Amino acid sequence: MLPGDRSLSWDDGAVVAVDQCALPGAYRLLRLSTVDEVIAAIRRLAIRGAPAIGVAGALAVALSAAAHRVGGSGVDGRCDEVAVRADARRIAAARPTAVNLGWAVERAVSKLAFGPDAVLREALAMVVEDEHVNRAVASRAADLVRRVTKRRPLRLLTHCNTGRLATVAWGTALGTIRTLAEAGQVEEVLFGETRPLLQGARLTAWELAEAGIPHRMCVDSAGPTAIATGLVDCVLVGADRVCLNGDVANKIGTYPLALAANRAGVPFVVVSPESTVDRALASGAGIEIEHRDPAEVTALAGAPITPPGTGAYNPAFDVVPADLVTAVVTENGVHRNEIRREAAS
Amino acid sequence: MLPGDRSLSWDDGAVVAVDQCALPGAYRLLRLSTVDEVIAAIRRLAIRGAPAIGVAGALAVALSAAAHRVGGSGVDGRCDEVAVRADARRIAAARPTAVNLGWAVERAVSKLAFGPDAVLREALAMVVEDEHVNRAVASRAADLVRRVTKRRPLRLLTHCNTGRLATVAWGTALGTIRTLAEAGQVEEVLFGETRPLLQGARLTAWELAEAGIPHRMCVDSAGPTAIATGLVDCVLVGADRVCLNGDVANKIGTYPLALAANRAGVPFVVVSPESTVDRALASGAGIEIEHRDPAEVTALAGAPITPPGTGAYNPAFDVVPADLVTAVVTENGVHRNEIRREAAS
Repeated sequence: MLPGDRSLSWDDGAVVAVDQCALPGAYRLLRLSTVDEVIAAIRRLAIRGAPAIGVAGALAVALSAAAHRVGGSGVDGRCDEVAVRADARRIAAARPTAVNLGWAVERAVSKLAFGPDAVLREALAMVVEDEHVNRAVASRAADLVRRVTKRRPLRLLTHCNTGRLATVAWGTALGTIRTLAEAGQVEEVLFGETRPLLQGARLTAWELAEAGIPHRMCVDSAGPTAIATGLVDCVLVGADRVCLNGDVANKIGTYPLALAANRAGVPFVVVSPESTVDRALASGAGIEIEHRDPAEVTALAGAPITPPGTGAYNPAFDVVPADLVTAVVTENGVHRNEIRREAAS
Repeated sequence: MLPGDRSLSWDDGAVVAVDQCALPGAYRLLRLSTVDEVIAAIRRLAIRGAPAIGVAGALAVALSAAAHRVGGSGVDGRCDEVAVRADARRIAAARPTAVNLGWAVERAVSKLAFGPDAVLREALAMVVEDEHVNRAVASRAADLVRRVTKRRPLRLLTHCNTGRLATVAWGTALGTIRTLAEAGQVEEVLFGETRPLLQGARLTAWELAEAGIPHRMCVDSAGPTAIATGLVDCVLVGADRVCLNGDVANKIGTYPLALAANRAGVPFVVVSPESTVDRALASGAGIEIEHRDPAEVTALAGAPITPPGTGAYNPAFDVVPADLVTAVVTENGVHRNEIRREAAS
């Protein structure tokens, strides 16, 4: 039901997506035909990854527009704009930190006046675009990695999951690793398990095995030591929001990797689509960080790991200050810091 | 069978210890009457924590000396020194990174010529000393924390377990937190769950609940963000080995906390007995880091969290360079960096 190596698509009136909660135990497809089903899938992280939730959000607006069709068909179709806009606000609020979701929903909503079919066309264009964008950004980031590293083959470290599962296809930071591996330039990929929800252990391990790329996992807190002891040539991560000053919000656990890379002089490269750049936000201080249920931390796969009643601090993201970022690479170019450094050298 | 608030003791020819693998599900005592049983308990971390494995190692030498008693009794007792020294080498090698184990075993072995009863007396003296040392170091560290922080009550962050379970009683870094809490000066203790073996989630949560000290857990990778966002007044950790230049080896995950504290200007205080200082080691580069079974990382509580065949990088400790350490506090004094800073200010 999903074409080729896609993780997210549209099939006959429904959003179809790989159920990321079921991996690696089972490869299962979700078929979501209502706005509420898409919102629920995004909230419980069955669909996750900033690009993927953006595209899913746009498709959910198309579902809403079709459900609220009033009169006419085809190009004459119109929809109840008030109702669709109300749905769109709920969709955009499903998760607060990734800017792509709001951006993608807004883009789909902008076609409302042209009717439900136009909304769907826009959302479908975004499905196709996301794959192209990822291939472009991965190619550009791979070139950058080659420029800023010396050792071959490369030992790369990544965090969370930024691969085909986090996007429509290919991936961003993990897409870059795929691109480098296709060129035979990857010796090993280290990745953190990504507590609390284990996106590294469950999803990145699965993708790297699927792609035949050598890999080892570590606990998240061991990444900084791998960097400090010379096991890593470059750190590659995605982003949920990039601010105008270059501050980056990404999955919790990214900040300590950036601190360690900075101290060790190891390049720290952020790979994300241009849609992740929030031009309305001056710095990371303005990013709303999602705090999730403490039970994600105090239990694992449903089994408690603490004494009953233990509370938890559970931010889903952290913010990497721009001075720790070697470069932010998007499909349009290499942003800021790397350019500054290249100019200075 | 264990007096008062002790976690480790000697009872009629056996080492008695809280089974740290069973907590927090069950509070269970181990009764170990052979060298091999003690070694196995240390290896599987049923007895863990640098001071606790040191004392357990000394008591294991006493077990060996009694088992190899030859002729005489009481003060006339002698033992087969060759056999006991062979056992002692095996005990000291049970885990490589903590220096206390080798130190404590050596101290017990030094009484071999005086017979098995003398060895036992020395080991029992170390049981009593450890509690005194912890109370002394905690009191000294609490004074230091009061000097280097302004906000009251304090919000403290710790890692792994350095409490009464990791020692004979009271604890080192967690002992300091107990001391500060007794004085009504603790608002909240944040601690990392301490993957892979969850000493924070299982043991520190249990101890803080037992002591009635307010606490919240976080995933290990969220500690640096808690520090960066102003939620922490002081970081307190233990140590498995302190080098002459002030470099500190401690549980994996300590290094990123030190990086974050340094950047945020938050004091990073190491609390450990003088026996943790390795005067034969110039710097952290010489510390042997124990690498443990990858299965500790790829499974959790026996259940796999990765696809089958996933490998793992699993260092049990990391090294914090001296320049990131505000102070190392032992029962004898405050070492180096804090003194240097005080002199400079």
